Amino acid sequence: MAAMPISPLAPAGFPDLPAIKGVRFAATAAGIKYADRDDVMLAVMDAGTSVAGVFTRSATRSANVLDCQVKLGGDSTGPAAILVNSGNSNAFTGHFGQTSVADISASVAAEVGIDEARVFTASTGVIGEPLPHEKITAKIGALKDALDEGAIKAAAGAIMTTDTFAKGSAAQVDIDGQTVSIAGIAKGSGMIAPDMATMLVYIFTDAKVAQDALQAELARICDRTFNCITVDSDTSTSDSLMLCATGASGVDATGNADFSAALEKVMLDLSHQVVRDGEGATKFVEIQITGAASDKDAKVHGLAIANSPLVKTAIAGEDPNWGRVVMAIGKSGAVADRDLLTISFGDTLVAEKGWVAPSYKEEDGAAVMKEQEITIKVDLGLGAGTATVWTCDLTHQYITINADYRS
Amino acid sequence: MAAMPISPLAPAGFPDLPAIKGVRFAATAAGIKYADRDDVMLAVMDAGTSVAGVFTRSATRSANVLDCQVKLGGDSTGPAAILVNSGNSNAFTGHFGQTSVADISASVAAEVGIDEARVFTASTGVIGEPLPHEKITAKIGALKDALDEGAIKAAAGAIMTTDTFAKGSAAQVDIDGQTVSIAGIAKGSGMIAPDMATMLVYIFTDAKVAQDALQAELARICDRTFNCITVDSDTSTSDSLMLCATGASGVDATGNADFSAALEKVMLDLSHQVVRDGEGATKFVEIQITGAASDKDAKVHGLAIANSPLVKTAIAGEDPNWGRVVMAIGKSGAVADRDLLTISFGDTLVAEKGWVAPSYKEEDGAAVMKEQEITIKVDLGLGAGTATVWTCDLTHQYITINADYRS
Repeated sequence: MAAMPISPLAPAGFPDLPAIKGVRFAATAAGIKYADRDDVMLAVMDAGTSVAGVFTRSATRSANVLDCQVKLGGDSTGPAAILVNSGNSNAFTGHFGQTSVADISASVAAEVGIDEARVFTASTGVIGEPLPHEKITAKIGALKDALDEGAIKAAAGAIMTTDTFAKGSAAQVDIDGQTVSIAGIAKGSGMIAPDMATMLVYIFTDAKVAQDALQAELARICDRTFNCITVDSDTSTSDSLMLCATGASGVDATGNADFSAALEKVMLDLSHQVVRDGEGATKFVEIQITGAASDKDAKVHGLAIANSPLVKTAIAGEDPNWGRVVMAIGKSGAVADRDLLTISFGDTLVAEKGWVAPSYKEEDGAAVMKEQEITIKVDLGLGAGTATVWTCDLTHQYITINADYRS
Repeated sequence: MAAMPISPLAPAGFPDLPAIKGVRFAATAAGIKYADRDDVMLAVMDAGTSVAGVFTRSATRSANVLDCQVKLGGDSTGPAAILVNSGNSNAFTGHFGQTSVADISASVAAEVGIDEARVFTASTGVIGEPLPHEKITAKIGALKDALDEGAIKAAAGAIMTTDTFAKGSAAQVDIDGQTVSIAGIAKGSGMIAPDMATMLVYIFTDAKVAQDALQAELARICDRTFNCITVDSDTSTSDSLMLCATGASGVDATGNADFSAALEKVMLDLSHQVVRDGEGATKFVEIQITGAASDKDAKVHGLAIANSPLVKTAIAGEDPNWGRVVMAIGKSGAVADRDLLTISFGDTLVAEKGWVAPSYKEEDGAAVMKEQEITIKVDLGLGAGTATVWTCDLTHQYITINADYRS
C-alpha cells in the first residue's frame, strides 16, 4: 500500500513537547509488518508513578487490553513500562495472543529490571494474524539502551498505522509557584468510534497524583473528549488510553482544577488530531447540541449526526443538506420534537420551528460548507442538555483506503 | 443528475404481477421534480378492504406518516385510496406539510367519492422543501379516469426516486380450493435502515382478512423481512409499508398459515430487491447469525456487521477481512465471547474458537468474496438465538451518489 498523502486537516507540524521528568522513551524498527520505519516504542517510568487507563468496551478486545485491565488494579509503587507495537493488533489471536503478551511482558521486565505486573502492552494493526513477538523481544535490550527523556516524538511515530501524521500535545500549569508538565501522544485514523477510549493514547505528567484520583479524572475527561469523536462508527478492539503521573516534579496535583483543565486541553487536542487524520477526511466538523432533554440525549443526537453516512457524504460534497441532519436526529432514538428544532450551519440559521428559516438562503449554507472547518448547531428546544462531538466527512478516499487494501 | 445505471444486482425484469380483484391503479407525470417521468400514483380499493400499515419510528417523521397513523385506527368499512408522489418527501415542512396532506386527501376523497379518513398518502424525495401539492391535486381527476386493475407496474415506476429499477413481487396460494393472490410494489435505495418498515411498500391481496389480524400479521412478518435489511444505517423520515386485503376473492385467509407464508415470501422478495438496489451496491450480502444468547442479540450482532463501514468496504474490495467481522461483533453491545466465535464466508470455515481456523486458506476466502452474492455466517456458541439480515457493500458509487448531488 502506497503511503497516503498527509491529511489536509493536519496541524502544521509535530509540536515541541516538554520533557516529562521521570519518563524515558525509545523507538525502533522490528520489521513486524512495515519496512523502513519504526514499529515498536518503549516508555519507562520511574518508581512512584501512578498509572491510570481506560480501554475499549468491545466484547472482542485484544489480549493486550485484557492484560492491561488486570494489571491496572494491582500494586502501583515500583517503576513501570509501556511497550507498543504497530503493524499487528494481536486481537482475535486466541491463546497465542496471551502468549505474545506474556512473553513481551516478561522480556521487558527482565531487561529493564521491573515487576512484570507493571509492564503494560498494546498492539495495533491487522486483526487476526499471529503477532511475531520474537521480533519484538529481540529488540528490547537495544530499546532499553536507547531510552531518552527527549525521544517522545520517535515514540509517536512508531505507533502509527494508517495515520498520515504523528500526533502529540502538551500543556504546562503552575501549581503553588511550581511548573507541572503534561505531554501526550496518540495514534488513530480509522475504526474510530470510541466507547471508552480510542485507539492508542499515552499521556505523561510529572505531577504527583494519587492513583484513584488519577483514574477518576481520566475517565471523567475521556467522556468529554475521546468519547465524543467518531470517524466511521466502528469501535476498535484495541482502544487504550493510559495516563502516567510520575510525581517527579514533586508537585501534588491531586484534585487541582488547573491541572484538570490542562489535562483536558491535551486530551481534547489529541482527540481532535485523531479526527483530523480520519481516513479520507477533508473536513473537520464540530457538532454542537443544545436544548436536549438531557446531556445523554444530546450526545446520542450528536453522534447520530456524526455517524450518518448521508450527513457525512453531504459534507464531503459541500452540500448544505440540512434535511439529512433532521433525518439523523429523527433516527437517533433520543427525544426530539420536529416542530421545536433549530439548526444552524456555522452562524447561518438554516431551520427553525420545524421548517426552513424565512431568512435562509441556500448560497449562505453553501458558503459555510465550503470551509475546511464546519460547525453544525442543533437546538432541540426541549431542555438544558448539551453535548459537543467531532467528526469528519466521508469521502472516496475512505473507500479507497478500506476497500482496496487490507489494513 | 444523470440517470444511474441499473444495479448489477437487479432482477432480470419486472415480474408479471397478477391483478388483485378489488384494486385499481393509475400513474401520471405531475412535474413535481423530475421531467419526463411519472411521479404520482393512485390506488383505489373497493369497500370492505382491510388496510394495515407499519411506519418509521423516526422522531422527525413526515406529515404523511403522521396522518396515516391517525387514519389507520379509524373506521374500516368503506372504499379506500392510496396516493403517493415522488420527488419531494414533504418531511420537515412544518404546518405547510399538514396542509399539503389535507388538501391532497380532500381532493382524492371528492374526486373518487370516498371518505377522506380512508385516503392514505405518502411522499418521497428531498426533505425540507414545500410540496407543490397543487400540481398533484390538478391531476387527480385524470388519475381517477385512468384507474385500471392491470396498472400496478406503472404505479411501481411512479414511486421511484434514486431507485435504478422498479420493484414488484407476487404470490398465489390455494385456500379451500380457491386461489388467493398477493401483489406488492416497493421503492427504496438509500436511507435504508428500517426501524419499523422501510421506504414505501404497498402490498395488495384479494383475500379477506380481519383488520386486527391483518395488522398483527404485517407487523410480525415485517420484523423478519424489512426490519432485517440495511443499506447505510440511515432511517428514513417517510418509511411506510401498507397492506390492503380487499376480500374480493371471497376467501377468508384470517389466520391461514399458507397465506402467511405467501405474504412473507412477497415481503422478503421486496425487501431483498430494496437491498439489491442499495445505492452503489455491487454485492448482495446475507448475514446468518446463530448460537446467540437470544434472537434479539442475534439481530443486534447481524445489524452491527451489516452496518459497519469497514466490513462493507472490505466486501466492496473483495477482501475476506474477517477481523472486521470480529470487530463489529465486539462493538455491537450484544453478548459475545471471543473464544467461542465461529465465522464462515460461504461454506469456507474462516475462524473458530477465537482464532483463524487451521484449515483456512486466504485464497478460499478470497474466492467467496469474488461472488456477487455472499453469505457470512457467525455462530456465537452461546445459545439458541438466531437472525438473518441482508445488506450490500459500500462503494465509491455510494459516495458519488450522495456527495456529488442533492437527492
